[in-house]
Parts: sequence; C-alpha cells; structure tokens
Amino acid sequence: MNAVNQDTIIALATPQGIGALAVIRLSGDQAIDIVQSEFRGKNLTLQPSHTLHWGTLGRAQAIDEVLVSIFRAPHSFTRENSVEISCHGSPVIVREIISLLLQRGARLARPGEFTQRAFLNGRFDLAQAEAVADLIQAETSQGRQAALNQMRGGFSREIKNLREELIHFASLIELELDFGEEDVEFAKRDDLRQLIIKIRGYLARLIHSFDQGQVIKEGVATVIAGKPNAGKSTLLNALLNEERAIVSDIPGTTRDVIEDEIHLGGVLFRFIDTAGLRDTHDAIEALGIARTREQMQKASLILYVFDLSQTSPEEIQQAERELDKGGVPYLKVGNKLDQAPAHLAMTLRGRDFILISAKNKDNLAELKEAILNKLELNQVRTGDVLVTNLRHWQQLNLTDEALARVLQGLGGGITGDFLAMDIRQALYHLGEITGEITSDDLLANIFSRFCIGK
Amino acid sequence: MNAVNQDTIIALATPQGIGALAVIRLSGDQAIDIVQSEFRGKNLTLQPSHTLHWGTLGRAQAIDEVLVSIFRAPHSFTRENSVEISCHGSPVIVREIISLLLQRGARLARPGEFTQRAFLNGRFDLAQAEAVADLIQAETSQGRQAALNQMRGGFSREIKNLREELIHFASLIELELDFGEEDVEFAKRDDLRQLIIKIRGYLARLIHSFDQGQVIKEGVATVIAGKPNAGKSTLLNALLNEERAIVSDIPGTTRDVIEDEIHLGGVLFRFIDTAGLRDTHDAIEALGIARTREQMQKASLILYVFDLSQTSPEEIQQAERELDKGGVPYLKVGNKLDQAPAHLAMTLRGRDFILISAKNKDNLAELKEAILNKLELNQVRTGDVLVTNLRHWQQLNLTDEALARVLQGLGGGITGDFLAMDIRQALYHLGEITGEITSDDLLANIFSRFCIGK
Repeated sequence: MNAVNQDTIIALATPQGIGALAVIRLSGDQAIDIVQSEFRGKNLTLQPSHTLHWGTLGRAQAIDEVLVSIFRAPHSFTRENSVEISCHGSPVIVREIISLLLQRGARLARPGEFTQRAFLNGRFDLAQAEAVADLIQAETSQGRQAALNQMRGGFSREIKNLREELIHFASLIELELDFGEEDVEFAKRDDLRQLIIKIRGYLARLIHSFDQGQVIKEGVATVIAGKPNAGKSTLLNALLNEERAIVSDIPGTTRDVIEDEIHLGGVLFRFIDTAGLRDTHDAIEALGIARTREQMQKASLILYVFDLSQTSPEEIQQAERELDKGGVPYLKVGNKLDQAPAHLAMTLRGRDFILISAKNKDNLAELKEAILNKLELNQVRTGDVLVTNLRHWQQLNLTDEALARVLQGLGGGITGDFLAMDIRQALYHLGEITGEITSDDLLANIFSRFCIGK
Repeated sequence: MNAVNQDTIIALATPQGIGALAVIRLSGDQAIDIVQSEFRGKNLTLQPSHTLHWGTLGRAQAIDEVLVSIFRAPHSFTRENSVEISCHGSPVIVREIISLLLQRGARLARPGEFTQRAFLNGRFDLAQAEAVADLIQAETSQGRQAALNQMRGGFSREIKNLREELIHFASLIELELDFGEEDVEFAKRDDLRQLIIKIRGYLARLIHSFDQGQVIKEGVATVIAGKPNAGKSTLLNALLNEERAIVSDIPGTTRDVIEDEIHLGGVLFRFIDTAGLRDTHDAIEALGIARTREQMQKASLILYVFDLSQTSPEEIQQAERELDKGGVPYLKVGNKLDQAPAHLAMTLRGRDFILISAKNKDNLAELKEAILNKLELNQVRTGDVLVTNLRHWQQLNLTDEALARVLQGLGGGITGDFLAMDIRQALYHLGEITGEITSDDLLANIFSRFCIGK
C-alpha cells in the first residue's frame, strides 16, 4: 500500500517485570540473520517458517538459553521475516539481549510499529489494526469480544458493504454527469433517494451502537440514589461484596480492583453512592443533594432505591416524574422487602419495581439481570458489530452528514455534480475508517497510542 | 527419579499486566489434547514437536487469535508434552483462556512446578533448577551470569568432581573394612590425608566464593565517610548522576531505580551517605557520628573522602589507623583535586589515594575501576563457579566439617568404620546440593519460592 519499511525492528513484547518467560520480537528483512549472528545452536537461517529452536544467545558471552521462533515472510504478523526470542523473564536479560541485537543492526521499534507494518503490508485494514490495541487494553469479556470481532474484520466488512452501495450510487450519478448535456437520467431520483435512506438507516444503527460500544469499552457510570436511609450504601456493599467473592482466583491474572467497580455479564459498572435526596433547609445538606442531582444527570444508569418499610404512593409518583424528566435510564429498586407490607410489594411488582433486601442479599441476581436488560446489554450477541472507537464514530457521523446533504440535494433538484461531490465526501470518510484513505499524520497519531512491542 | 506427575498443569508464564503478548504454558500428558479441544485451526495433535500454529482459541466462543507452540516429550523443558499459547497480552484474555482450559482438564500449576517436573524428569539436577529462579531474579549482569553458569551445570560439575574424589576415598576405606580382621591397609594413611586436604582446599575455595557470590547477587553496601565538607554528597551525586545518564533507555526494560543504587561493572552498589566525622561536643552531632561509625562497621566497602584543599598528614594517618582497625575494605579518595597543592597530590598518589574532583567529575572512571578492583570483582571471570545460594553454602560447610572430622580421625588413628561414617556424611551433604539426596520437604521448600509459571 505505502512504501514498506524494511529495516529490522526489535522490542520486548511481553509486559515489563519479572516472570518465568519474556518474549522479544524482531521484524524486518534481516530479523533472522541478526538473531543468527548471536545465536549458538542450529543455523537459524536454514530453518523453515513456524519452527522453534533451542540455543544460547550471546556468542562472545552467553546471556541466556532461549527458544527462538522463526517466521518467514509473508507468513508472519507483519508479513516480514520475524523472530520471537523466548528468554527467561528477567529485565536484566531482556535489556542485555536487546542491547546486543541493536549492536547487530536492529533498531528499537516505535510504539505500534509491528502492527503498523502489518497494516502497511496489507495484512489487515486500519480498523482491524486499531482493534489490536483495543484487544490488549480490554478490561472486560464483552470489551474483549467487541475488539476481537473488529480485529477479525466484522466492522470492516460492514464498512466495505456501505462503500460498495455508495460506489454503486456514485457510478450512476457520474454516468449522468458524462451525459450531462443530454439530460439523461440513468437512475430514477426516487430509487436513489431510497438507496440513500437505506444506507443512512444502516449508518444510524452503527452510530447508535457507539453508546453500547462505549459502555462495553469504558464501563457504565451507575448512580445509586434515593432518600436518606433507603439502604443505598447497603445495596452498594452487597453488590460489591458478592462480586469480590467471585473474582477469579487464577494467579497472575487478577488486576488491581478499583473501589466500587464490578463486572456484570462481562460489562464493567462503576457505582457511585450519593447523598440522600430530601427537602432540606440545611445549607450543607442542600449542597450534597445538588451534587447528587448533578451525578444523576451525568450517569449512564440510575438505581433509585425506595425504602419499602416507609414509602408512599406520593413519594413514588414524585420520584418517577423526576426520573422520567431527567431522561437517564433508571431502575426502581424497592429495598427492605422483608419489612414491606404484603399489599405494597404486590402493587409495586406490577409497576416494574425490583424488590430486594440488600441486607439479606435477597433478589440481587434479579436486580443484576434487570440492570443488564435495561441497558440492552443482554442482547449484545457476540457476532454483533459495535462501534467502540471514537475516531470511527466521528467518521460515521461525517459520512451521514454528507449523505444528508445528498438527500437534501435530491429533494431540491440539485445538479449531479454537486450530488457527486457529497457522495465522494461520504466515501472519503468511510475510507478513513478502514485506511483506504490515510495520511501519515493520521497513521502516526493512531499507532503512537499503541504500546511498544505491538 | 521420583514418581512423575502426569496430570497437565497450566499457568501464565510471562509477567502480569498489559503487553503486546502473553504466554500461557501447559505441561503434561494431555497438554496438546487439552489445547486442541478448544483450538480452531490445524489439528494440533498431528503436528510435530517444535512447530508453531496460528488459530483461534475458544470453540464455542472465540476468545483470541493465538500462536500455539507444540513440544513433544521428551523434547521440552519439563520433558513432558508441552504447549505454549502466545495470545494478546490482556489480563482478561489470559484469565479467559486459563479458565477455559481448566474446564478441559488442566489444573493450575503450583509455584515452580514446571521446573520441579524438569528436575524430577532428570532434565537437570537440583542446583541447576535453583539457578533458574536466580536467573529470573537476577538484578545485574554479573548476577545473571553467575546464575546462568549454575543453570548450565558449572557448579554441579564441581560438586560431582568432589563427590567422585570422595567416593574414591570411601571405596578404599570400605575395602579395608571388608578385610578389617586382617589389618590390611589398601590406602596409605598419608595418601588419604593428602587427598582430604586437597578436597578441603577445593571446598574452601567454593565456600569463600560465597562472599563474592552474595555481593554479585545482593549488591555491595558502600559507605561514603569523611570529615564534614570533604565533598561526600557531591561525590555521591556525581556517581549517581553519571549512572542515571547511562541507564539503558530501552523501553520496557527499565526497572524502578532505587535511590542511591548504581551498577558498576555489572554489580549493584548501594551507596550510603553519612554524617561527617569530627570531634564534637554537640550531643546531637555526636549521635550522628556514632551512627556513621556503625554504618562503617556494617559496610562491605568504605569510600573515605579527604578534602585535599585542607588535609594534613596527621589526619591521614589517623584515618588510616582507624580504617585498618575496622577491617572493612576501604578506598582513600582525595577530593577537590583542583584545589590541592601539587606536592600533596604527588605524595598521595604514591600512598594509594584515588585523586578526584567530584564537582568537576574528574577521575570518576578511575575511582570506579578502583572500587571493582578492591572487591576483586574485576577478576570474576564469566566461567568462574560462584556459590550464590545460602543452602548450597550451608551444605558445603557441613561437608567441610565432616571432612575435618575425617582428618582428625586419621591423625588420631581412628578405626576405618568411623572414618567411613564421616565420609558418608560428607557425601550426603554434597548429594543434597545437587539433589541426588532429597526429601519431599526439601523440594517443596525450594520450589515454593519460585514464581508461578516457572
């Protein structure tokens, strides 16, 4: 696609620190020769692709006993000759090996340079390359799944389909332009309009999926609100404790657990406990309540907790009105079910309440299920294409705006050359997503966000 | 050797955290089959050893695209069937893959269990297995080198030679015992004595090397002492800054630099700045000076700094006397060379002073060279066998004690059966080093200190 860098780059590919193993990777024309020049064992330059070889690295002075993986172009991640050196996982050894091979002609890789080469050598498009970074950074199963789908080309295929539809449309318009003087209409204006409307519907679905994609990637800011003493903190602790207990205990895979974060159905929820809401004349309490309302406005989800032992129809109606007005998705949670009058429980069940006892941990599973349903996160199928990348979302919006102009033009009887201009604009934006259209700045910007070694 | 565990173990082998790649390893009879049961791509069970295969892990739901390395028994680290899965370096992916393969019949590896299996399957002896852990933990080049030598069997060969000499001796004694009634002497007592003396000389060298080995492994506590205002802190900063400037800038390999630690010639030095030494009536200053003397006593090396612009023969003589009395290796450093009278500089050069200007960074290279020479660290050749492990050092001492009893017995004309007992004792202790003689407790103790995945 672009010019191909053929110098040989090197970097540590595994996380920093001490471990049983570390992997150093090289890519470039000379990758195998450079490693061979410091390898004692078999002659690596004679070995076929996808084979493993044990030996000693460091000819003048042995640094470590290593396993070397050979990948021959184009059968590697970068489509260049590549080597992976699996050494003992000591920072000292890693540093010594990299230093040695730098002396032999390799150079340090820039962030994302391996993936950038894979992209430039046509292994995948830009959206897929970006998914590699998302995959590494994924904090949840669903985030991992969305990134994997994108890396495997699910999103790229949708964009490609969109482009093909648009190119079909564009070709009809351009044909008309060629016969401009003769006032020929190859495409009925009405058919064109239908096509654009269809494409925009398609775009709208992708653009809309960004909310879900963001939720999956970044987590859901969830505010727990309600009157003082409704049991908000008890509910938060009940949810957190239960989660803590089931956190995976596979050694070496647990990450630092952030206060108030839990995973439900593979999605990260960040819970925010708030000051109780009530009418007050106390200035400081009023400030706390104002802050609560602010948090509720910014939240992605509100769990509004009622104290079933002392709520009233008036309180419920007032809260519902306020929540509806706010426009943030919410769930009504009736707490202290064990102290609730039987008729009240019955009535509220019919009004979409989730009835729990936070103290006794009753019905928490039902609440979790309701949370996932509320955000339609249970309906995300693993094959679904989600837009998770802000850059993609922006380009999709720009595409849509260009198509809106086309539609407007068609309505206003605008000439074919203006239509063609907007269509080309739409195609340009789609092309920026997958990298058919790129600039060096764009690429530098994207890959600089990668970690080194990827 | 012992019974061989054949269940299949699994663990993350690379450091925790986010990186381009992570490697999960499995070992055991079923390793290849277990991975195959969740692998989409080629049939791994049909692939030869030391080959690499690209595919997707997770049959019901794809978790990640991975590269799988196949190692067939006995051509693996553990001598069992082994698989290494190279996946994207996300903790989420690692956890999901390990969880999936646990369901398929693998079990989580205990710390050091891969290396323990390698040992039990005869891949190397116990001292070599222990060196694997040292290699991973090595903080300096020399530490890495010492561990590598040990892992490659340098130390084990020396122990084996010692054992053979002793076994030769023992066989002569035992032969005499067989003919005990006849009062035959197969071995001249004098020859036996010479042999034991030779072996003890050999042992002494190894035991002595522990000091050097510890220095290489643990670092050198170096106190900078001298009168107030001699330039101690300036010297410390000059040494530290120069080191900081040359600290490797290979990304992903720098470790947290600990205040006041530097590497010289591949050895770690921990510098300790001290309160200036002078006669004082100030109680608080006197406390500081007492603390300085305490640090000097505990140090492995003292850099004693003189202010050349205002030192006197009396000061020098007094300091030398005190330092000689202390018994800690020391270097006399003449600072402020730029302000020194010419005749003084001349005189002191003849008295083993290293003359520097810390402020101007003059002659720092010479000082560093002198530091390494003082501790005989320049003379450690890469092939030298060093004892770096406390357990080995203890066993060598016990061996030596048993041989001292043999020597005493020979002198006192003790009977062959007592001699034989002490010889067997010496052999026992040597055998504990290399693991010819082991107990489950000993093994459990040793391998529990390994990291998981090794």
